[in-house]
Amino acid sequence: MTTQYDVLGIGNAIVDVLSKVDDQFLLTNQIPKGSMQIIDEDTARHLYSTMGAAIEISGGSAANTAVGVAQLGGKAAFFGKIKTDQLGDVFRHDITASGVAFPTKDATGGPETARSFILVTPDGERTMNTFLGACVEFGPDDIDVETVKASKVTYMEGFLWDPEQAKQAFVKAAQIARVANRDVSLSLSDSFCVDRHRDSFLELVKRDIDILFANEDEIKSLYQVDTFDAALQAVRQDCKIAALTRSSAGSVIVSPNDIHIVEAEKVDLLVDTTGAGDLFAAGFLTAYTQDKDLVSCAQLGAMAAAEVISHIGARPQADLKELAQAKGLL
Amino acid sequence: MTTQYDVLGIGNAIVDVLSKVDDQFLLTNQIPKGSMQIIDEDTARHLYSTMGAAIEISGGSAANTAVGVAQLGGKAAFFGKIKTDQLGDVFRHDITASGVAFPTKDATGGPETARSFILVTPDGERTMNTFLGACVEFGPDDIDVETVKASKVTYMEGFLWDPEQAKQAFVKAAQIARVANRDVSLSLSDSFCVDRHRDSFLELVKRDIDILFANEDEIKSLYQVDTFDAALQAVRQDCKIAALTRSSAGSVIVSPNDIHIVEAEKVDLLVDTTGAGDLFAAGFLTAYTQDKDLVSCAQLGAMAAAEVISHIGARPQADLKELAQAKGLL
Repeated sequence: MTTQYDVLGIGNAIVDVLSKVDDQFLLTNQIPKGSMQIIDEDTARHLYSTMGAAIEISGGSAANTAVGVAQLGGKAAFFGKIKTDQLGDVFRHDITASGVAFPTKDATGGPETARSFILVTPDGERTMNTFLGACVEFGPDDIDVETVKASKVTYMEGFLWDPEQAKQAFVKAAQIARVANRDVSLSLSDSFCVDRHRDSFLELVKRDIDILFANEDEIKSLYQVDTFDAALQAVRQDCKIAALTRSSAGSVIVSPNDIHIVEAEKVDLLVDTTGAGDLFAAGFLTAYTQDKDLVSCAQLGAMAAAEVISHIGARPQADLKELAQAKGLL
Repeated sequence: MTTQYDVLGIGNAIVDVLSKVDDQFLLTNQIPKGSMQIIDEDTARHLYSTMGAAIEISGGSAANTAVGVAQLGGKAAFFGKIKTDQLGDVFRHDITASGVAFPTKDATGGPETARSFILVTPDGERTMNTFLGACVEFGPDDIDVETVKASKVTYMEGFLWDPEQAKQAFVKAAQIARVANRDVSLSLSDSFCVDRHRDSFLELVKRDIDILFANEDEIKSLYQVDTFDAALQAVRQDCKIAALTRSSAGSVIVSPNDIHIVEAEKVDLLVDTTGAGDLFAAGFLTAYTQDKDLVSCAQLGAMAAAEVISHIGARPQADLKELAQAKGLL
């Protein structure tokens, strides 16, 4: 069977609400810096009423990755649940206009389209507070079997483990992809998310995941080890490929037989780290689906991540394909 | 009577939908570059479906000015009409969080909250396509008499001339302010807008306006003259103060007895001109309500305009008050 898509992303369909705050704001509201916490509707309302003026930009981790793949010239699709409302319109418009197929039907009732209040501190670090909204309506019926079968890589965000029905959808998609002999990829998303779902993640990683994305905190949390090296040794037993990101220290790409250490791309001015991991995955998977070697995959990931942290918002603003071609990465 | 507000802005309550386009996109869609055109709901839907991924930021000309005044440390209020919907929530949150009083009641029925599709070309120029939505519901009943009386300056955008009921509201507010011996200020907003409403604008300028804001095209259009100098000589007969902006060529401040030519502030990188005129007015009026001389007013206007064109969106991102104090302008 020929493939129709290079990367199918499955994740929460979220509109980001970005606002600059000082560190004191996080302390006052007892929000752990750098994390993603799930908030309910009341907390969302309270937080929004206390935070400053904001900018709305489409987001969602796997959705950002799908957009990055499309903008690098790959063929991308996305599954995720919005409601038919104004923020849902914004999400659908932006992902579609970015060249990503988005076949999932809107929810017509239930909670509003999800939003994440992303608080950006002066150091460029982002702290996310997500009201899942319509994402909780995403379930196994939203997994279009033919699309999964027709995608080289099915890429899923760990955040999807939070809404129960979505988790089932996730497992269903992974099984379809495995049977079709496609690659299954997972991003661990957040160390707090790993804490919440460690056993399920470990089982999934050992059984189903070909390509794992994680940052240093997440991979240490998964294996409950204190050092990066210990995590590294553990993960190489479990996955075909693990792409471990370490912010400005670059990335380490691990396979059972190889370890490569790849530099981060220099960034003139770090503005907002939102989407760094998502775009790293986009670059990595775009190169991977073009059969590039692992170092080239990591380099394209580093380039895409560097672009997205140099401005506000988690969707690329520059022409990623042109950038990559200029650097000889595509 | 003591004043409660330095500046009361009255205008269309709009969420901006900003997207980068190339010049060809404007040509293909026959949109005059640099203008603001009013579009109906069908055109809005069509345009949105053809434009690229976007960013949503609260806007509206007089609303941007009110936010600028508040962020410069002045006391500001705003009248304008949103609907109770998600974009309305965004608008209300942002203007309130920026320190502006916003007493106007939401529309609960009728068209959705207004949006303007702002197409930013590579030269930083913005071309606006505004679906007025709930703004057409704004009328004389929305003019809170006590707030007008309690504001040193009532500032209105020429765009408000487009919805018929808003025009009546505008005239009502101007009369209340005059009777209360307050200053009435108008921005001509757009040369196409001046074309649509030239006679009414001229009558208003001669009768009611103390402080007029206009750029070069707008003031030439108002008096139907070919040269800037001819417009200059005409306007000084009609207004107490006219603040005429000329982009990077700075501004010319005209009163019956004086003319001052004030330099523009240097901008390292012009990103998006959206809001330049609005923030010039914010700086000018903030200084004016603190009894600064006209040159200082224009300098503070130039500083605020320079900040807003150095990034995307028409609301300030830097601490304007701190910037102004560092430059000795406040």
